[in-house]
Amino acid sequence: MSKRLAAEFFGTFWLVFGGCGAAVLAAGVPNLGIGFAGVALAFGLTVVTMAYAVGGISGGHFNPAVSLGCALGGRMPWSDLLPYWVAQVIGGLVAGSVLYVIASGVSGFTPGAFATNGYAELSPGGYSLLAGALIEVVLTAGFIVVILGSTSTMAPAGFGPLAIGLALTLIHLVSIPVTNTSVNPARSTGVAFFAETAAVGQLWLFWVAPLAGAAIGALIWRGLLEPE
Amino acid sequence: MSKRLAAEFFGTFWLVFGGCGAAVLAAGVPNLGIGFAGVALAFGLTVVTMAYAVGGISGGHFNPAVSLGCALGGRMPWSDLLPYWVAQVIGGLVAGSVLYVIASGVSGFTPGAFATNGYAELSPGGYSLLAGALIEVVLTAGFIVVILGSTSTMAPAGFGPLAIGLALTLIHLVSIPVTNTSVNPARSTGVAFFAETAAVGQLWLFWVAPLAGAAIGALIWRGLLEPE
Amino acid sequence: MSKRLAAEFFGTFWLVFGGCGAAVLAAGVPNLGIGFAGVALAFGLTVVTMAYAVGGISGGHFNPAVSLGCALGGRMPWSDLLPYWVAQVIGGLVAGSVLYVIASGVSGFTPGAFATNGYAELSPGGYSLLAGALIEVVLTAGFIVVILGSTSTMAPAGFGPLAIGLALTLIHLVSIPVTNTSVNPARSTGVAFFAETAAVGQLWLFWVAPLAGAAIGALIWRGLLEPE
Amino acid sequence: MSKRLAAEFFGTFWLVFGGCGAAVLAAGVPNLGIGFAGVALAFGLTVVTMAYAVGGISGGHFNPAVSLGCALGGRMPWSDLLPYWVAQVIGGLVAGSVLYVIASGVSGFTPGAFATNGYAELSPGGYSLLAGALIEVVLTAGFIVVILGSTSTMAPAGFGPLAIGLALTLIHLVSIPVTNTSVNPARSTGVAFFAETAAVGQLWLFWVAPLAGAAIGALIWRGLLEPE
Repeated sequence: MSKRLAAEFFGTFWLVFGGCGAAVLAAGVPNLGIGFAGVALAFGLTVVTMAYAVGGISGGHFNPAVSLGCALGGRMPWSDLLPYWVAQVIGGLVAGSVLYVIASGVSGFTPGAFATNGYAELSPGGYSLLAGALIEVVLTAGFIVVILGSTSTMAPAGFGPLAIGLALTLIHLVSIPVTNTSVNPARSTGVAFFAETAAVGQLWLFWVAPLAGAAIGALIWRGLLEPE
Repeated sequence: MSKRLAAEFFGTFWLVFGGCGAAVLAAGVPNLGIGFAGVALAFGLTVVTMAYAVGGISGGHFNPAVSLGCALGGRMPWSDLLPYWVAQVIGGLVAGSVLYVIASGVSGFTPGAFATNGYAELSPGGYSLLAGALIEVVLTAGFIVVILGSTSTMAPAGFGPLAIGLALTLIHLVSIPVTNTSVNPARSTGVAFFAETAAVGQLWLFWVAPLAGAAIGALIWRGLLEPE
Repeated sequence: MSKRLAAEFFGTFWLVFGGCGAAVLAAGVPNLGIGFAGVALAFGLTVVTMAYAVGGISGGHFNPAVSLGCALGGRMPWSDLLPYWVAQVIGGLVAGSVLYVIASGVSGFTPGAFATNGYAELSPGGYSLLAGALIEVVLTAGFIVVILGSTSTMAPAGFGPLAIGLALTLIHLVSIPVTNTSVNPARSTGVAFFAETAAVGQLWLFWVAPLAGAAIGALIWRGLLEPE
Repeated sequence: MSKRLAAEFFGTFWLVFGGCGAAVLAAGVPNLGIGFAGVALAFGLTVVTMAYAVGGISGGHFNPAVSLGCALGGRMPWSDLLPYWVAQVIGGLVAGSVLYVIASGVSGFTPGAFATNGYAELSPGGYSLLAGALIEVVLTAGFIVVILGSTSTMAPAGFGPLAIGLALTLIHLVSIPVTNTSVNPARSTGVAFFAETAAVGQLWLFWVAPLAGAAIGALIWRGLLEPE
């Protein structure tokens, strides 16, 4: 069990450090910055890379919503859920801390939103709570369908991490302007406490919506898609 | 059969929601927006991800033109064609509806072209009907050759969804300025009714040209390329 | 043999239509255009997709320099070289023609450089003949090493088309500003006659340098790298 | 042994020529340039492509820090370490030299920073020595975990080069603004002597930090993650 939790810790660290790091350090550099598309690629590649590296150890969730979806999908015992969540959240918080130290290594640094998720006045594009909740639910549900489907016995072996990571890239390509894209409560929690904004006050949505979406995705897979 | 149709419904939902969602929500954000290249990547990744997830259930078409090409290519019984088309079009329309709700969650929202396809005055770059028809036919034909070839017995197993999805990215990289890229009547139909423009009046082309291209692609594959 | 030549014809058509099409139609669109990086991705994806589709038929060269490298590498009989070259060049020219028809479907169209390759005054960035020749030789040599290596018995099966196509993306990421990137005489020939510029007068370099680079790459592979 | 060293020489040449070449020649072209995201993709694809091509010969390190991590990870005999380092550094220096010749083939050329790594006044974004050291250590450690994990017996066979190369893309997406991204002493050394800046005087950090990170990554893998 300790190796599985270590894998989830390091994998979630990598996801939050790499994805939020790209957003904080590289997205908005004038002329040469990587923009939303580069951030989307970074988030996806954190999962592609660590899921190939340690997916064989822990399953490679790096995300409490994914762990819930895997439990509901019958891929993980329920008793693992809470330990996984703890490892993931700690991994995210450590990543946020290290990122903060690095980001503050430039004169005149202010954390700003620090890659946090938000709605309404904290949405990058000013999208409402309803829009933010809806897109997080829909995209997390689709994410779970991709995860359960691409790792099922019907899918070609070995491609799961690629499909799952690239799904996270896709999700970011769509939704960064709406909520800055969570679909992952550990990612949202990992950076929330470092922002100058009131991101912590909106953190509840980025637990509720991804978990609800994960449950819906698991139900769609098991009820409507999974071959018997 | 119901699971196959559910797979086509959800897969086409994902394609239209993800691809058109990226175009509507994220392409044009100032400085940080994902641009045409990000939209191209999003469309392709919808297919990469869902084809790995549910391709083993339904074949993973998510596109009436692809279903026609698969029927002509001898990969699907003709009796499946109409049910597949219905599931795909409904999936696209539901995706367009959900996307509309989310996109309208920002003050001052107007739908504009809403990621619809068009020619002449509705072409992003002002390209003529002839240019639009020709590029849709050529690119859909090539798409079908990639689909039938990369899933044939001569191709390495398991890579088909990757090749097919990345072909859709390539197709968008070339043709967004011309028609906003269809090659998929369900994608065109899914958003057409939400635009402020006269996109519905041009919808016929984005059924005729992709279906014609699919037929040509299937004939090229079967007549000139497929090993005996 | 006819199916192999058809595969080379269609594959080279796809490469030139997709890659040069992205350059002509989509690269320079204000604000949303795909830029050099999008063109680089497009060229690479033409090879990824068609090599998975028809690589099992013809080898999936789509490039006279690659065919020379494969002949020198002992992967293809020398008697196939000339027929392959003819099929590739015709495929490129047909692609250039179709692209010209589409591109001219917008009012005020002028072909300009039409995605041709060039040096000195025809180099996108004004690079000299020496710089252009050197980079074409070096990158084609590396391309051939990737091709011969990734399809050798030591490499994991099935990944060759992915590695080879992504090598072409890499090559474009580096060298578009220098020569607009050839490494492929059929690609250079396919568009040369449509430009307003004097590109035809420089076409010789984009036969000589890629072929020389291919020979060097094949010698490096066989002499220094290939396991016995 | 000579073929293994030749593989490391050519692979490191390809990494430095392709990655630094993209940075020097293509990143900053007005309007159409590939930016930091294109450079990140280029570096990653050098590894994807050459690791598929020659990874079966030498392991495909192309990086002294990776060779150290592989030795510490028990994947390579210690006696190979120094010869690998020599081949890698020479490959990097030859790549820097060829790139310099090409880059100087345009009138008014000045080398500027020439894609060198740096901190403080030589950091692209003005990040401090501490920030630079920390991000290089963290990212190299994660890189080694990905390398050792994705090539372990628990990971699906054949995907290692893809995961490892894309990890290098991810690493660049995060850290180009901080240090211009090393994680590879041979890459840093290969271009350091060509810059107009005082990059050589900071070269020590890009040996110390990547090697330290590699050691930490190997310890994390062996101590906390590797199944027994």
